[in-house]
Amino acid sequence: MFNKTNETKVLRDPVHGYIHVKYQVIWDCINAKEFQRLHRIHQLGGDFQIYHTAEHSRFSHSLGVYEITRRMCEEVDAISATLSEYEKIQVLCAALLHDLGHGPFSHFFETLHKKHHEQMTCDLILDPETEIHQALIKEDESLPQNIVLILTHKHSKPLMYQMISSQLDADRMDYLLRDAYETGTSYGNFDLERILRTLRVKNDSLCVKLSGMHSVEDYIMARYHMYWQVYLHPDAKSYEIMIQQFFKRYSKIRNIDVFEPLMNGSLSNKEFYLMDEHRMFYGFQEALNSEDVILKDFANRILNRHLFEWIEDPTKQQIMEIKKKLEQQDFNLDYYYYEVVSHSKAYLPYTENDENQIIWMLNSKNELISLSSSSQIVKALLKMKNQTNKCIYFPKEII
Amino acid sequence: MFNKTNETKVLRDPVHGYIHVKYQVIWDCINAKEFQRLHRIHQLGGDFQIYHTAEHSRFSHSLGVYEITRRMCEEVDAISATLSEYEKIQVLCAALLHDLGHGPFSHFFETLHKKHHEQMTCDLILDPETEIHQALIKEDESLPQNIVLILTHKHSKPLMYQMISSQLDADRMDYLLRDAYETGTSYGNFDLERILRTLRVKNDSLCVKLSGMHSVEDYIMARYHMYWQVYLHPDAKSYEIMIQQFFKRYSKIRNIDVFEPLMNGSLSNKEFYLMDEHRMFYGFQEALNSEDVILKDFANRILNRHLFEWIEDPTKQQIMEIKKKLEQQDFNLDYYYYEVVSHSKAYLPYTENDENQIIWMLNSKNELISLSSSSQIVKALLKMKNQTNKCIYFPKEII
Amino acid sequence: MFNKTNETKVLRDPVHGYIHVKYQVIWDCINAKEFQRLHRIHQLGGDFQIYHTAEHSRFSHSLGVYEITRRMCEEVDAISATLSEYEKIQVLCAALLHDLGHGPFSHFFETLHKKHHEQMTCDLILDPETEIHQALIKEDESLPQNIVLILTHKHSKPLMYQMISSQLDADRMDYLLRDAYETGTSYGNFDLERILRTLRVKNDSLCVKLSGMHSVEDYIMARYHMYWQVYLHPDAKSYEIMIQQFFKRYSKIRNIDVFEPLMNGSLSNKEFYLMDEHRMFYGFQEALNSEDVILKDFANRILNRHLFEWIEDPTKQQIMEIKKKLEQQDFNLDYYYYEVVSHSKAYLPYTENDENQIIWMLNSKNELISLSSSSQIVKALLKMKNQTNKCIYFPKEII
Amino acid sequence: MFNKTNETKVLRDPVHGYIHVKYQVIWDCINAKEFQRLHRIHQLGGDFQIYHTAEHSRFSHSLGVYEITRRMCEEVDAISATLSEYEKIQVLCAALLHDLGHGPFSHFFETLHKKHHEQMTCDLILDPETEIHQALIKEDESLPQNIVLILTHKHSKPLMYQMISSQLDADRMDYLLRDAYETGTSYGNFDLERILRTLRVKNDSLCVKLSGMHSVEDYIMARYHMYWQVYLHPDAKSYEIMIQQFFKRYSKIRNIDVFEPLMNGSLSNKEFYLMDEHRMFYGFQEALNSEDVILKDFANRILNRHLFEWIEDPTKQQIMEIKKKLEQQDFNLDYYYYEVVSHSKAYLPYTENDENQIIWMLNSKNELISLSSSSQIVKALLKMKNQTNKCIYFPKEII
Repeated sequence: MFNKTNETKVLRDPVHGYIHVKYQVIWDCINAKEFQRLHRIHQLGGDFQIYHTAEHSRFSHSLGVYEITRRMCEEVDAISATLSEYEKIQVLCAALLHDLGHGPFSHFFETLHKKHHEQMTCDLILDPETEIHQALIKEDESLPQNIVLILTHKHSKPLMYQMISSQLDADRMDYLLRDAYETGTSYGNFDLERILRTLRVKNDSLCVKLSGMHSVEDYIMARYHMYWQVYLHPDAKSYEIMIQQFFKRYSKIRNIDVFEPLMNGSLSNKEFYLMDEHRMFYGFQEALNSEDVILKDFANRILNRHLFEWIEDPTKQQIMEIKKKLEQQDFNLDYYYYEVVSHSKAYLPYTENDENQIIWMLNSKNELISLSSSSQIVKALLKMKNQTNKCIYFPKEII
Repeated sequence: MFNKTNETKVLRDPVHGYIHVKYQVIWDCINAKEFQRLHRIHQLGGDFQIYHTAEHSRFSHSLGVYEITRRMCEEVDAISATLSEYEKIQVLCAALLHDLGHGPFSHFFETLHKKHHEQMTCDLILDPETEIHQALIKEDESLPQNIVLILTHKHSKPLMYQMISSQLDADRMDYLLRDAYETGTSYGNFDLERILRTLRVKNDSLCVKLSGMHSVEDYIMARYHMYWQVYLHPDAKSYEIMIQQFFKRYSKIRNIDVFEPLMNGSLSNKEFYLMDEHRMFYGFQEALNSEDVILKDFANRILNRHLFEWIEDPTKQQIMEIKKKLEQQDFNLDYYYYEVVSHSKAYLPYTENDENQIIWMLNSKNELISLSSSSQIVKALLKMKNQTNKCIYFPKEII
Repeated sequence: MFNKTNETKVLRDPVHGYIHVKYQVIWDCINAKEFQRLHRIHQLGGDFQIYHTAEHSRFSHSLGVYEITRRMCEEVDAISATLSEYEKIQVLCAALLHDLGHGPFSHFFETLHKKHHEQMTCDLILDPETEIHQALIKEDESLPQNIVLILTHKHSKPLMYQMISSQLDADRMDYLLRDAYETGTSYGNFDLERILRTLRVKNDSLCVKLSGMHSVEDYIMARYHMYWQVYLHPDAKSYEIMIQQFFKRYSKIRNIDVFEPLMNGSLSNKEFYLMDEHRMFYGFQEALNSEDVILKDFANRILNRHLFEWIEDPTKQQIMEIKKKLEQQDFNLDYYYYEVVSHSKAYLPYTENDENQIIWMLNSKNELISLSSSSQIVKALLKMKNQTNKCIYFPKEII
Repeated sequence: MFNKTNETKVLRDPVHGYIHVKYQVIWDCINAKEFQRLHRIHQLGGDFQIYHTAEHSRFSHSLGVYEITRRMCEEVDAISATLSEYEKIQVLCAALLHDLGHGPFSHFFETLHKKHHEQMTCDLILDPETEIHQALIKEDESLPQNIVLILTHKHSKPLMYQMISSQLDADRMDYLLRDAYETGTSYGNFDLERILRTLRVKNDSLCVKLSGMHSVEDYIMARYHMYWQVYLHPDAKSYEIMIQQFFKRYSKIRNIDVFEPLMNGSLSNKEFYLMDEHRMFYGFQEALNSEDVILKDFANRILNRHLFEWIEDPTKQQIMEIKKKLEQQDFNLDYYYYEVVSHSKAYLPYTENDENQIIWMLNSKNELISLSSSSQIVKALLKMKNQTNKCIYFPKEII
């Protein structure tokens, strides 16, 4: 009924062995230009500046999320039995396309672009002009709308969005494994096979058999470690600050063509398609010729990894000294001094504040209980005290 | 005597565990802008179009070659005893910098640029204006010249260039392991530990103890498999043809600023520094707006992976039919039909035609014998018959 | 129709991730005492004396062969479509049970026992007294007989025995991967996933699509390397000689109860069940108390790894010297000097001498062609010249 | 000064790549019969009944502990500088030999043998009759005594016993990695490289630089997971109970020669040498012929994996029913019903109750602080509530 490819197509993938594609609509989406564009957006933004092999793109990650979702659909009996073939196709498409709206240097880009990447993803899927939209409607007219319902958590079957966006979802599972593989750290590893084997559905919700509890604990710890060792690394933050300060300055100068569309608020879908990292870096190269010393300096810092140095939890004395040195050496503090305050609680790998964000376990009496009430480790984690950390950033040259 | 970093610096690397840096000059070279640029050149050109995770850069590979060379210097007793500390620093720098002169889409780039990447590497090292040059002379005035002697195989101690450029060298060993890791294929794996353990020096030449013969055979087979499964994959060739045909057309049009320096023959070192993949891809994006239909089409093919289809060893009949269809559908055969003839012999992973290209084994009587005379497998390989293969490429749409 | 376990049972396995069991008869066979006995037989005999972690048993390997066969039945479309469910169960049982008749120190044991392990396996399956037999007939009366037809290559569907016993079979594929994993060598690795993906059935025979040729070449090379690096290691041979000489002596003394049944030619099935490595080693311990100096010495050599030294391709001079020293030190040459002559041709990882032993490839015209006519590497291998090697073994103490 | 082997000897090991031996005394210890005996004692007792590939021996583990200790001595600057060459040899020997006194089915064996394995290890090292003792004094007369000082935590340099026996020691680090590798679970993995890189010595004590905190947290979690998933698995306990009940019965019967020495309390060192798993299993085989039905039954359960079933946290009702069924079916409750009460607190992977059992971290001010005061995760762990669990065991047949 639904169009299949001639034979199952396979794409070699170091994390999953192979990505398996048997629906024509999935194959067509992969070949759509908006999806191909994801090859031109790093998965981890500037983290390749810290972990030099973290050079993988959102293209690979998107295929990985699709593959885990496919295995959920085919190998988890409870899911396979709950969803119709059409619903499976919807959720597979949603998995594949969930990151379509990401710009370069992801979260920073959103502040410039003033549109969340989730919204952008939906816009691209719904726009009749995009190749993605055309690939989808070739299979079914209502597919774009249904995918958007999943991506916006409005679908009538919560299971369908839980599979790709919840506390235990294909998205996080792929990126932890993939980022660990690509950075060469072991921290992100957990037992995907066992989690898949213990997934169940109860009251239309995704849950995990109690015998899979240790795998889930391990997954939570993988998140914890990846946050602290990779995603929140101060040098990664430092690189992000370089880009942020560059555009803070640029907004006063406005002399580089490729950046201009970004300055006008919202991009059209066509402009967005072009706005990849190649274009951004070409822009930074152009800025090397700028007459503005500050803009030129930040372009050089971005291109050649002259990151700001940082001090965690500085004393007042230290802050004063740093500022003094900056002034003595004629650094403009608006650009060359930066403070970040973070709350450890905010980076907890898991919380149960919100009903929708609980990982549910299925106990031997076939009842749903929260992860924290079955795992002593997780319960302990939730009681962690909040800590507020300040970190200051400044040019290395002054010391 | 030579400047050391405060403590050994380590960079996490999935292939080698860690990259270890203890000399200041190595650290300074890594931070020079010409080296940082290597982050913007894919190691495998367009192979990420076939193996979607092959997104790693020459930056990582260069660090890997350095690390294997470092282990040779420190862990192989015969090398450690043969080379002075200064010679070790020379060869470490040469290992790190050997790919500095690579442009985007490597081999094709050379045809446009009319300068081999080896020559470009030497030019950058010798140019007093480059940060690399400055980093090197901060340690020692004669370092740039000595590194060039190694890279051009003119150094008086052949061992020094054999370590990084011979049939069994740090360069190949790193790229086989790394490309296998990043593509997710197992073909490139071999036992690096055992090869390092059995390396010896005899008559100033690198050689391998006979007990390491099976590891060397395995390494030769890894090369063989990577050639056929990855490096010579017809889809990779197809992507290369897209770029080639783009510039064949572009040479008649000349309307995109970022490509112009390339058209004038040789680039200055400064222009070369800017000529990375970001700039090239920005140029392809610009070509999407071209009024020339052919140029625009090839830009689209490059950006969105609309590769040519191919037929291996086509019959005359097939060739005629393809050409006829192309003409019927108004495709210009100068751009839309492409033949490649290759000789299997040319892709042998190992030959002994040239005295300098032999892998030498050290037998139990402490004599040097050629690999082929100790390994029956390799001897058999060398007797492989030559085969000539033709492969034709054309747009998928016509079938 | 066929009895299933409550839910699919899974056994964690480092080589395959998990072993999956859904048929009750498989589960019952695993729990039969003749199968549990395989935990008490090392997979690699005395190779743990050379690769100290090669301590795995035929139990694990048998599960592995079963698992690869299960994947062939379920994942290879051509096989899945060709075989009925009952035929699949037959071949799964045959895969699981194929090594049931192995004694300790495998091949040597056969010389004492005067019965090939293949014959012993069939005897145990057909004996109504064994738990294995009872487990099988609980599912189906004719199952034992059908399994024996497969194991003896007499089944009317050759595909069924090709899956577990041919040049490209589940048996070899598991032991190469497993022995590589357990010894910690990389040599035995090859791309199982890709081979499974390219398996086809043509004219009732197992074959491989031409696009899988490189995986098959890699598998052949894995066999080659494992032969030379692990299975034929002279120290492994030395350990085997210790056991052989022990029994050569023991046959003249006959004073240890646990060995006596072995001396009477054929063991009953009940005696065979008890004849595991524990019993053999208990016997060697007993021999430590023997009054016969030679028997006691070999027991000590076996228990405490005092292996014979060896010289490959000794000169006549060397042989004379060794013999002279042995005589001077009163070693009995009947026991303390041993020659092995081997022919390299005999250890080729692959030959095509015998029609039944060819690996068939399926070309693009859907014709079967031999591996050697599609692979230049393999063709070259088959032309390897025969070499005859002599190796002499003797006590280390004399030098 | 100290005797070296001709060249560094290497033993291939899947966990560490290679085990490196350069001191003759280490090589001689490995070849001593008391060390070779460790090949005949499973590292994980009966866990191969649950994880079928967990068939590795204490021999491999002992080499692994040695190798980690060797790396500490050579690669951790602070240790390398603190210890003399002679002290390094002492600690290397202690690492290699620390498990010498283990009997089969380790902890149960101690209850029969009435001697702790630690004491037995020391006895063997000090006994002038053992080959181990002789190997040691060939290097240095006082070596046995010094090794015992380390093993009994009485050495004047605490660092020396902390390296092999503390909360963060070579022993635990090897067994977590090795048991994870051999069972095929990922739980035991942690980043050994990074821990080694961040080890320091302060006030004569082993500690870890604060930048290694996440690696230490990961290691603690690896311990936690391995406890619950492998070491404390109820099926493993069930197998242990089979052996315990066998001997409870045997103590009333006393008819099997090989077990008799065990019944007389303490074994001589010579008897101990013979008491390996081969002998035990031979004894269980002998018991299959016993006229005592209970003894025979337990022998069969042990040999053929007829484990007791178990219920965790049974209700009173369930206990009563089980007991009733056992009585109805004439099972002797003294042997066929077994209760285990365990306290979760007792299985915490890490506590700081005891001053000596704290993992010390070195903060940026060069002060020692406890792990729990630097790691919020660990602090949370220590606050875990105690839970008391009951588990009952009984024959599966009754249900």
